Amino acid sequence: MSTPLSTETEKNSLIITMLISSWEMQNKRLAELITKLSDEELLSETSPGKNTGVYLLGHIIAASDGMFAIMGLQDKMYPALEDIFLRTPDKSGKTFPAIDTLKEYFHTVTNSLNTYFKKMSVVEWLSKHNSVSAEDFAKEPHRNKLNILISRTNHLASHLGQMLYLEKK
Amino acid sequence: MSTPLSTETEKNSLIITMLISSWEMQNKRLAELITKLSDEELLSETSPGKNTGVYLLGHIIAASDGMFAIMGLQDKMYPALEDIFLRTPDKSGKTFPAIDTLKEYFHTVTNSLNTYFKKMSVVEWLSKHNSVSAEDFAKEPHRNKLNILISRTNHLASHLGQMLYLEKK
Repeated sequence: MSTPLSTETEKNSLIITMLISSWEMQNKRLAELITKLSDEELLSETSPGKNTGVYLLGHIIAASDGMFAIMGLQDKMYPALEDIFLRTPDKSGKTFPAIDTLKEYFHTVTNSLNTYFKKMSVVEWLSKHNSVSAEDFAKEPHRNKLNILISRTNHLASHLGQMLYLEKK
Repeated sequence: MSTPLSTETEKNSLIITMLISSWEMQNKRLAELITKLSDEELLSETSPGKNTGVYLLGHIIAASDGMFAIMGLQDKMYPALEDIFLRTPDKSGKTFPAIDTLKEYFHTVTNSLNTYFKKMSVVEWLSKHNSVSAEDFAKEPHRNKLNILISRTNHLASHLGQMLYLEKK
């Protein structure tokens, strides 16, 4: 029942590594799915009347791109996506980037985030994110960067579950 | 940029509390959804030709029930669900429990798990789960109970995303 880790610091590092792996695994599954799907499949609805695959892909990229800013890492890479895929629902009539462009954006954002994530220290992960004030963070220390990673991993898993419906039986 | 936590032990406890909250939030969303959905909606497919709501609910309960055993907490509460909802696909002809019974099982399993989770120490969370040998665990310390919680939270988020499609527009 005992753990082979000897120090508390090692335990913290291990847990953060586990959480980065969990984030990466969801992104890897999405990468595999969009490689496999045809453009026609990506353009179709995940369920009748629900979001299309291309909208959900854009939505996921825009959400990931937002992590640079909320974690204070760098500016967004593709700020124009926010209006199309976060502030506006699907089928609004707005023009989406081409599917190949979105796929490229997805890989660029994901790879850039992962490069930062692997260099961040435990202290940095547990520091406040940019959507909480210093006063509130003093009372609510869970509102840190690691919590952004956890909630965005669940958000990604949820939409990935929906995008799996685009696969032909 | 600094964290208000002073010790490494406090950091570990905070991260584990965040992960339990993340698990609980997904379960709370599912609880709200199944309260809102009619039996007719739960019996329908989440997308044409895909799993029904009732199958996904049973599948989630069976997966959660499996956490008791893999974490060495207690025996499964409803072992009969494994065959119906984990080993057999939807529409196999097997008889499902009544919807009200499944809803009751969901709450019982979730509440019982959460009671254990709130009492577990950091050392216990980072100890090996029952599907890995002591030899492998010595080399791969991430194969611990906390990792089960993380992966099952993502699994739940994924199917919850699909079940949201049962809601009338």
